[in-house]
Amino acid sequence: MISGPSGVGKGTIKRALLSRMTDINLSVSVTTRLPRDGEIEGKHYFFVDQSKFDAMIQQNQFLEWAEVYSNCYGTPRSFVVDNLDRGQDVLLEIDIQGALQVKKSMPTGVFIFISPPNMEELASRLLSRGQDSKASIDLRLAASKDELKRIECYDYLIINDDIEEALEKTMAIIMAERCRVENIDLR
Amino acid sequence: MISGPSGVGKGTIKRALLSRMTDINLSVSVTTRLPRDGEIEGKHYFFVDQSKFDAMIQQNQFLEWAEVYSNCYGTPRSFVVDNLDRGQDVLLEIDIQGALQVKKSMPTGVFIFISPPNMEELASRLLSRGQDSKASIDLRLAASKDELKRIECYDYLIINDDIEEALEKTMAIIMAERCRVENIDLR
Repeated sequence: MISGPSGVGKGTIKRALLSRMTDINLSVSVTTRLPRDGEIEGKHYFFVDQSKFDAMIQQNQFLEWAEVYSNCYGTPRSFVVDNLDRGQDVLLEIDIQGALQVKKSMPTGVFIFISPPNMEELASRLLSRGQDSKASIDLRLAASKDELKRIECYDYLIINDDIEEALEKTMAIIMAERCRVENIDLR
Repeated sequence: MISGPSGVGKGTIKRALLSRMTDINLSVSVTTRLPRDGEIEGKHYFFVDQSKFDAMIQQNQFLEWAEVYSNCYGTPRSFVVDNLDRGQDVLLEIDIQGALQVKKSMPTGVFIFISPPNMEELASRLLSRGQDSKASIDLRLAASKDELKRIECYDYLIINDDIEEALEKTMAIIMAERCRVENIDLR
């Protein structure tokens, strides 16, 4: 799980990671929000309407789901579980609420928190991204202060003050976790 | 702690590690065995006689000590503790008996087991090193089979079938451990 506040760069880290470690499977989320320019169905998200999303909740098809800024996001359970059963690693880029939900059902997962160096830096990144209204940004910053308190629920913390360094640390964590005795079948 | 059977390459990994990660402090062991050619007092070991070693045991000056193939090896406690207190990382290259002792007094240490791909490979390495008699090698191989069962006491397992890859994994583990939330002061 790569998680952290909005705008911290977890999407950038995710994309770079997938291009360098090609044996990692990306979990694609389901969402009720509208596609942004360039977003592709089944690659960036599965886009569904609210009634379909609600039906999936009822059928327990989500490993986690959350409502964030009036949109719903969910992780299809079967994709993750099927890949893990085949001995494959699965990457989730996920908001903090979602990560904490996944932790309840998958406590042995690896939870990485990507943090901004400070709040001002985060605000500047969100503004320069230019996809979000000022009001939406204020809402996210208010949320982020609470979110930072939740770091203690995570296994790893990466301060993203340099994207290349943050990526290197993320790859190191994945490589190290693959060497953990508890993750290796010794028989 | 970098540990594993004799001849597995942990000395090679240690030396490469220290040259690439220069902020790591190497713990230098005390030993009663005689210096090999080229070994330098205070760099490779502190060489002492048995009575001095016994006195250090009595004075509780060792974090761990062990008798291996009729020689005694010990890790001076003060060097390790002083460096950790200053927030510095300390590297121990240590035999398996020693590592299990350190684990008792420092359970939060990071324990890495370097394993040979197989026993035949280990025998071949010991023979090619040319520093050990055939009898001594047989003794070590017998010990190694038991030692491999102790991997479950370790945090990480690295199969050393390629020295560069093993080194990369060791560095990844150190980098990852430095990102662990439990190792970071969040206040």
